[in-house]
Amino acid sequence: MSKNLTKREVDYSKWYNELVVKADLAENSAVRGCMVIKPYGYAIWEKMQAELDRMFKETGHENAYFPLFVPKSLFEAEEKNAEGFAKECAVVTHYRLQNDPDKPGKLRVDPTAKLEEELVVRPTSEAIIWNTFKGWIQSYRDLPLLINQWANVVRWEMRTRLFLRTAEFLWQEGHTAHATKKEAITEAELILDVYGEFAEKFMAMPVIKGLKTESERFAGAVETYCIEGLMQDGKALQAGTSHFLGQNFAEAFDVKYTSKEGKQEYVWATSWGVSTRLIGGLIMTHSDDLGLVLPPRLAPIQVVIVPIYKGDEQLAEISSKVDVFIKEFRKLGISVKFDDRDTFRPGAKFAEYELKGVPVRIAIGKRDMENNTVEIARRDTLEKQSVSQDDVVSVVSKLLVEIQDNLFNKAISFRETHTTEVDTFEEFKEAIKTKGGFVSAHWDGTTETEDKIKELTKATIRCIPLKNKIESGTCVFTGKNSSQRVLFAKAY
Amino acid sequence: MSKNLTKREVDYSKWYNELVVKADLAENSAVRGCMVIKPYGYAIWEKMQAELDRMFKETGHENAYFPLFVPKSLFEAEEKNAEGFAKECAVVTHYRLQNDPDKPGKLRVDPTAKLEEELVVRPTSEAIIWNTFKGWIQSYRDLPLLINQWANVVRWEMRTRLFLRTAEFLWQEGHTAHATKKEAITEAELILDVYGEFAEKFMAMPVIKGLKTESERFAGAVETYCIEGLMQDGKALQAGTSHFLGQNFAEAFDVKYTSKEGKQEYVWATSWGVSTRLIGGLIMTHSDDLGLVLPPRLAPIQVVIVPIYKGDEQLAEISSKVDVFIKEFRKLGISVKFDDRDTFRPGAKFAEYELKGVPVRIAIGKRDMENNTVEIARRDTLEKQSVSQDDVVSVVSKLLVEIQDNLFNKAISFRETHTTEVDTFEEFKEAIKTKGGFVSAHWDGTTETEDKIKELTKATIRCIPLKNKIESGTCVFTGKNSSQRVLFAKAY
Repeated sequence: MSKNLTKREVDYSKWYNELVVKADLAENSAVRGCMVIKPYGYAIWEKMQAELDRMFKETGHENAYFPLFVPKSLFEAEEKNAEGFAKECAVVTHYRLQNDPDKPGKLRVDPTAKLEEELVVRPTSEAIIWNTFKGWIQSYRDLPLLINQWANVVRWEMRTRLFLRTAEFLWQEGHTAHATKKEAITEAELILDVYGEFAEKFMAMPVIKGLKTESERFAGAVETYCIEGLMQDGKALQAGTSHFLGQNFAEAFDVKYTSKEGKQEYVWATSWGVSTRLIGGLIMTHSDDLGLVLPPRLAPIQVVIVPIYKGDEQLAEISSKVDVFIKEFRKLGISVKFDDRDTFRPGAKFAEYELKGVPVRIAIGKRDMENNTVEIARRDTLEKQSVSQDDVVSVVSKLLVEIQDNLFNKAISFRETHTTEVDTFEEFKEAIKTKGGFVSAHWDGTTETEDKIKELTKATIRCIPLKNKIESGTCVFTGKNSSQRVLFAKAY
Repeated sequence: MSKNLTKREVDYSKWYNELVVKADLAENSAVRGCMVIKPYGYAIWEKMQAELDRMFKETGHENAYFPLFVPKSLFEAEEKNAEGFAKECAVVTHYRLQNDPDKPGKLRVDPTAKLEEELVVRPTSEAIIWNTFKGWIQSYRDLPLLINQWANVVRWEMRTRLFLRTAEFLWQEGHTAHATKKEAITEAELILDVYGEFAEKFMAMPVIKGLKTESERFAGAVETYCIEGLMQDGKALQAGTSHFLGQNFAEAFDVKYTSKEGKQEYVWATSWGVSTRLIGGLIMTHSDDLGLVLPPRLAPIQVVIVPIYKGDEQLAEISSKVDVFIKEFRKLGISVKFDDRDTFRPGAKFAEYELKGVPVRIAIGKRDMENNTVEIARRDTLEKQSVSQDDVVSVVSKLLVEIQDNLFNKAISFRETHTTEVDTFEEFKEAIKTKGGFVSAHWDGTTETEDKIKELTKATIRCIPLKNKIESGTCVFTGKNSSQRVLFAKAY
């Protein structure tokens, strides 16, 4: 594999695939569609987890863990949910291997160890969790029940891409039960806000909050809320979803509570999740032809220090200075790496940290030591400046904030220039074809029209924005009346 | 289920099962042998994870994530490992369900969606990880490779018990590759020290570090190091293992590196793990007939404050005082809960927190407010004291340290009084039968003798302690010469 990345302009998809592998984020495994998340990629996931977990706990949620397997009889209990996931689920049918009598040294499934009931590897955990909730909920005092799980799930997708769509992925899935419909809807909206805040404040990825149309709704949900980001190639990415499930699962699993008034009522439910797909979104929002660009708040290494030296004596002198910086950075909670390997030249190190998206690079050499300076380079703009050693820590602290803001603002302005309001289907097609991005258009509200537009343009309705203004118009495709615009885009 | 626990004396096993469920730690699920870890139990696991993860990172390890599934052909590559796990593994054979034509509303496996190669749900990840390491290791510069994974694994055990032995469990598994045999052994021993330190300093559970005999070794290992704890019923618990794998996996997966001298060499390996089983050990080391007793360093709630009041006015007065304590506790990193629910009486709350093992309880009522005091009760000894409100925070801070130490010391002295040196097989049988615990005895070093002793007494060799003194003696069973004592016990 060549050292340089394919340029985004040339082939965005190829650029993405190369970048994920070359920046040591993830790779394909021996298992079809399953990825290996490498340490550098996993470190980003850990940072995401830490922030999200804190936000869930601050809003009253507790973590728990439920079985990996869903017995078939539970899996099929909520019909729409089962229908939605049956086509792509991994099924355990046996619990033992034995020596293959025909092939020495090889194993085969032991035909006598067949399970009485097949087990589905969870594609999502509503079924197993609602079967458990039945035992946890008796009275209104047990509500609301606010549970989150960090777990792996499996969906046997046929076309997979690292982070964006893999057969196994890591995610969190929240599952909550409430006494009233209103509370459940409030919960689903609260979580959408948490997701939105996380995406924008930590990932520096602007998102549109909205509702899915019927055809894009989660199987078993009454409403699906979503956050949608816009990638650099003009395609949208569904980055998180929060579902109001109504009483569908409560009915399927017979989960009732005794109200204050002594009545038996079905509870109301939500579920919500974000996954390792976010890492794909992070990459495609900020990175460039040189490699990753990471927002400081999620960068595993925020600052790298590269010494430029000849001989051990120079290195020792530089190191003793650098040690002071490192201590001060750590005190401020800034993660810093000092790369004093003698097996690579400074230029190679610079390229490596560019590829890996480290937000700030500090270089310090002989002349810097003489002049009491360092060279500071920022990854986002590639700008460099010479700074007095006395000011390094304060300059870098401010720079990290500035980079975080700059990335967000750049992404916001990209989205603005890639959102087009159209009023005719000609304009619609033209916008999708030439510019990509979000196309804001009136739609008559039918799945039929949605499907036809998709067929003709490959664009789907990403969401009905929550902050929509009500304006009367006519559907770009059928000319029927419409009261609000929706957002179309090609999507991942 | 009655409110009171079965007493330990009456039926230790029943006491354990009841406690796990009543203290809201875990419960059995709809999937045979798989547990649901409830929020309170999961919170303990999170505290364990946080400390262990920190210790792994401080010793240079990085986290990564590998696929849940192991293709059969990889699974069988390391023969002994495959043999060890083949008998109890969950096997995925199909990737789709379809509507059952014979049973409306039901699903069945789609016979046309059979996998070309079966997938084993990982019982441990050596195979998939070593297949990956092959691509990561080319030169001595790539070594050592120090990787850890937090994951779920599945072993289709026939007899399961919550936390102690479940079909699915959560664990961490470290997998490392080294240039030399010596480095790999040093790594395996380093991790054993990490496990020992974690067990003793955080769990307050004393452990013996040792080596497993051949018959108890991990399938595929050259040596298995272990930490062994002693439970209150005199049975031992293997709490963690660290394996020196030699070059077995490197050979099976053809993982070689170019040495500094330019030679191609197989790498040397270790793997190591601890699991949610630790929670079982934690429970059985400290808890009593009233419920859990948690060491402060792993308690999700370290201090609970219960107000004793009549009417809103008294509660408001108490609350404003308690708010001051809470702020001070949090500043010190002490987790505190104020339970002002009006749906339960103080007595019921006291019983609940006793059952849940909260280390320190503070009660504060009308008279306390008049006298500027609170009542402090410690869970381990059940002692109570009245303390000035001015001293609450400092008294409790010290008490938490004292409780942690007391639990460890109590467990150490229990182990001392339950470790018996014996020189004859009569003494051996007597000790195992009447007192239980560790029995230290000479053994002739053969698996045959080990098996016979197991058959006659149900005791197995838990380990050959690392800090053993060399002393000549004769095997308690065969009378053959022996140079050191080993530790026998009945075990979980």
